[in-house]
Amino acid sequence: MKFISFLREGRATYGFVDGDTVIDLAPFAAKAGATLKAALERGALKEAAQWAQTDGVRIALADVELLPVIPDPGKILCVGINYLSHVKETGREIPKHPMIFTRWADSQTPHGGPIVRPAVSEKLDFEGELAVIIGRTARHVSRGDALDFVAGYACYNDGSVRDWQKHTIQFIPGKNFPSTGGFGPCLVTADEVGDPSGLALTTRLNGAVVQQANTDDLIFSVAHLIEYCSTFTELHAGDVIITGTTGGAGAFREPPLWMKAGDVVEVEISKLGVLRNVVVDEAARATLDVA
Amino acid sequence: MKFISFLREGRATYGFVDGDTVIDLAPFAAKAGATLKAALERGALKEAAQWAQTDGVRIALADVELLPVIPDPGKILCVGINYLSHVKETGREIPKHPMIFTRWADSQTPHGGPIVRPAVSEKLDFEGELAVIIGRTARHVSRGDALDFVAGYACYNDGSVRDWQKHTIQFIPGKNFPSTGGFGPCLVTADEVGDPSGLALTTRLNGAVVQQANTDDLIFSVAHLIEYCSTFTELHAGDVIITGTTGGAGAFREPPLWMKAGDVVEVEISKLGVLRNVVVDEAARATLDVA
Repeated sequence: MKFISFLREGRATYGFVDGDTVIDLAPFAAKAGATLKAALERGALKEAAQWAQTDGVRIALADVELLPVIPDPGKILCVGINYLSHVKETGREIPKHPMIFTRWADSQTPHGGPIVRPAVSEKLDFEGELAVIIGRTARHVSRGDALDFVAGYACYNDGSVRDWQKHTIQFIPGKNFPSTGGFGPCLVTADEVGDPSGLALTTRLNGAVVQQANTDDLIFSVAHLIEYCSTFTELHAGDVIITGTTGGAGAFREPPLWMKAGDVVEVEISKLGVLRNVVVDEAARATLDVA
Repeated sequence: MKFISFLREGRATYGFVDGDTVIDLAPFAAKAGATLKAALERGALKEAAQWAQTDGVRIALADVELLPVIPDPGKILCVGINYLSHVKETGREIPKHPMIFTRWADSQTPHGGPIVRPAVSEKLDFEGELAVIIGRTARHVSRGDALDFVAGYACYNDGSVRDWQKHTIQFIPGKNFPSTGGFGPCLVTADEVGDPSGLALTTRLNGAVVQQANTDDLIFSVAHLIEYCSTFTELHAGDVIITGTTGGAGAFREPPLWMKAGDVVEVEISKLGVLRNVVVDEAARATLDVA
């Protein structure tokens, strides 16, 4: 099953995706909740999909404005240095523990939305990643049980402002500029994806392949990450773990490859579709906002 | 003016502090909002204080169970390495930019609440800090204007699980175990505090002074931190900036000084009062929860 969060007549809602149509789940909100996160909290995705297929009204997917898959995650945990190929290009050693940093929800942008290059930097970089969406409360979860806590998966572009990321050893500033983290196009449920290793991941910039990997190259598997993270914090429905990027990011090229206004960046993962964003400058966006 | 968040008959509320009494602001919630964060969003603290002093019902402070000053901040930004004396003990260089990492709201604990030592570590450390509570939306704020965006101040104990903090170069795991970040006892409004430099800060462990500093020793001032943070993210009412700790933390002592069950840790800052917490073990707490 596939679910999206979207805007309809200015109102935030979510829906069940069926082919090139979507069924708004707002009329089913009393049962399933008013947001995709709420539906996860209630464990109501299957019920919602059934209602959608029998009683829902179909809208063309092309007619809706998407929101980030989960617009309001309580926690977004990002993993650094999690592909062997990326470890090699950064010159780092193979880590003994997952490297965890965070984003806030307002740093996200949906499929089709702008990735905003802030006025204070020219060093905006892409990072294609597999995002894991948590389905229910998880604390002290063992690796063997971990995948039972996954609601689904999506593509993520962990857009990074490299100079601000490297102001100190802590990455937070460079990972939290507004509208830099692409998250989309939709949540694909875990049962439809099956084993999250073995997924092919490709990042394209203006059509050219810039990153290529397979999730079977992850140093810390999805299950391992859930075990580790649920040891130091309680995970909740709608939380997101972004599992790290692979080789080829712009900062590690010679010369570096920075994204600029007008660039089209895509992250494609098998079974999960394509996340596409256009880069705009902060100033340009401010102008659009008042237009 | 002083405000607290607290539990009354199992219900979360907030109140205006007058001497050793508190006036529950719940009856004024239609005007000022149902939480301290909501009151900040509405810019309603003065009005709430006026209502409290004329129409409110006083309860003894001793009879209420406190919550963290802001139980639900949207963002908690922590600063590492921000006192010259702490820079010296860590052997690091004086930084050119503030070192920013994050906590989540569920890592907090109130004045009088337990600091929980997780079962997975024996390396639980204290960090006495000045917390700044943001009063209104702030983006691209200049240093000169920054203090206008401060609602008030409180004491913070940025409790740190040092081995998990040092699993990789990113601090997040060691800074986010549940119930490790003491935040209290109350919000003291910015007008009552005045200049946030020149405040004496003392941390005591079982009565012995373990950290002593003055906020005039901050490398990055409160105003500088707001300028820097509001450049990469939008700050909102109720967000918290924890301004960093000074020398004397347990990890940097020889031998190291770790907190253990039964320890009493206090952070005292001039004009802001004393934040006091007792350390309990994770297992012990689980037992208390079901008692």
